[in-house]
Amino acid sequence: MKITEYITALRENIGKAREQGKTVVLIPTMGYLHYGHLSMAEAARKQDEDHEEIYIVMSIFVNPLQFGPQEDFDKYPRNLGRDSSLAQEAGVDILFVPAIEEMYPERENLTQVSVSGLTNILCGLQRPGHFQGVTTVVAKLFNIVLPDVAYFGQKDYQQFVVIKQMVKDLNIPVKLIAAPTVREADGLAMSSRNSYLEAKERKQAPILYHSLLEGASLIASGEKRPEVVREKIRQKINKETSGKIEYVEILKADNLGPVDTLQGQVVIALAVHFGPTRLIDNILVEV
Amino acid sequence: MKITEYITALRENIGKAREQGKTVVLIPTMGYLHYGHLSMAEAARKQDEDHEEIYIVMSIFVNPLQFGPQEDFDKYPRNLGRDSSLAQEAGVDILFVPAIEEMYPERENLTQVSVSGLTNILCGLQRPGHFQGVTTVVAKLFNIVLPDVAYFGQKDYQQFVVIKQMVKDLNIPVKLIAAPTVREADGLAMSSRNSYLEAKERKQAPILYHSLLEGASLIASGEKRPEVVREKIRQKINKETSGKIEYVEILKADNLGPVDTLQGQVVIALAVHFGPTRLIDNILVEV
Repeated sequence: MKITEYITALRENIGKAREQGKTVVLIPTMGYLHYGHLSMAEAARKQDEDHEEIYIVMSIFVNPLQFGPQEDFDKYPRNLGRDSSLAQEAGVDILFVPAIEEMYPERENLTQVSVSGLTNILCGLQRPGHFQGVTTVVAKLFNIVLPDVAYFGQKDYQQFVVIKQMVKDLNIPVKLIAAPTVREADGLAMSSRNSYLEAKERKQAPILYHSLLEGASLIASGEKRPEVVREKIRQKINKETSGKIEYVEILKADNLGPVDTLQGQVVIALAVHFGPTRLIDNILVEV
Repeated sequence: MKITEYITALRENIGKAREQGKTVVLIPTMGYLHYGHLSMAEAARKQDEDHEEIYIVMSIFVNPLQFGPQEDFDKYPRNLGRDSSLAQEAGVDILFVPAIEEMYPERENLTQVSVSGLTNILCGLQRPGHFQGVTTVVAKLFNIVLPDVAYFGQKDYQQFVVIKQMVKDLNIPVKLIAAPTVREADGLAMSSRNSYLEAKERKQAPILYHSLLEGASLIASGEKRPEVVREKIRQKINKETSGKIEYVEILKADNLGPVDTLQGQVVIALAVHFGPTRLIDNILVEV
């Protein structure tokens, strides 16, 4: 596996792979890799264990643009040594680890890519500017790598829908794949931010997923009123954890539109704070 | 020359050209072609008259996103028959003439690309949203065509600077070329909108360019105060035409920054209304 901090070197290596007829896969991450990230590289590698047909680019970049002024940009966990070992084991061909100056050489980045409608709900409400930071950096990464395929985790479901919209609206020639959320044995969705949790919080955190499962189960048993399902989930979280709910929402899975009566494919999404740590999770439910 | 309305067909043709090792050149236009447009195709073609190394894509699309509600979107002149003859003569390989639904298949285009700082001055002041419409459609065209080289007219100087900034900030892998403004024999910058002018206005319109030349001449003779040069230009236009000045500005040529004392390379840019017709022009001056 190669590692580079530089766009020019990255492009050179990708260019060679492309000349050899390889499909270029991009897996953008903020690092502090866990199996949720690695599973994406493994899924791509599985189809081509000999590195003959697929060239996997993983980026690690903690993007300042997508953090609010009061958020955890500074303390976001970083461990490049460990990340590079893990990425290599997972079959990554090149790890792109740019410094901030490489991605944003100007004092200010004057150009922004924004998606309206999908970004003023769910996480976008409490994190203004977050998704604009995401779409801007992802647009940059797409232009740098020109991937044939890009993976994003389903755990960040709203992010996936927003990026899918951007790709469609801007005619970006890339195939997007949403990778299933990978969970700890007790059900907690893997996240680099789980490392922030104190022991007691860590013990309670899986209840977020269990509450989503209860919601899904209620829907499976015939409940059609989203507000009843949401209330059930809220009650469980409030009763069984010290977490403070930011939102529990049920929306159309494809475009995050509102749902009056449960039907079709929906996503149940939530955000809950444990002290300073903000966790999100979601599940897709076919009604 | 081929003509297509469809992104898929366009991409197929470009793909074949690329497989043959050709350099792909994009010339985005709104049609109603004049020699300002055609000179760009001719410049690209000149280096490869046999169509062996360079593949020229010209797009004709009157982009609704860049017109304000009170502007001339509906009456913007269109003549595809004439345009396609001219494009073919100029050496274009494929003309892309999408319908609005091909470029914006959704009711709304949720994704926008915007460049701050450079767009709230000059034309951006009177045309809010204009440059966002431009950068969004150009980002789309870049993703559709993936050109190696793209031409834009220097006549729309602010547009060129804005697109240059977008390309840099978003790491778009394209080389930009600003094509020199082509003028009628009397000095009027060629523009599809010149067709709006009444006979009397058409007669006065070249004075815009002559006033820019007088400004440049004043600078050449040692004048260092931009406000003196601007005033000279304004006086000439006010005295010799019925046009109403929207702006006359002198800014740094590379980044449109303010200029206190004339030095380095500057652009003198102006916008003047003749009745309902808005004309722009500019010249670059090395102080």
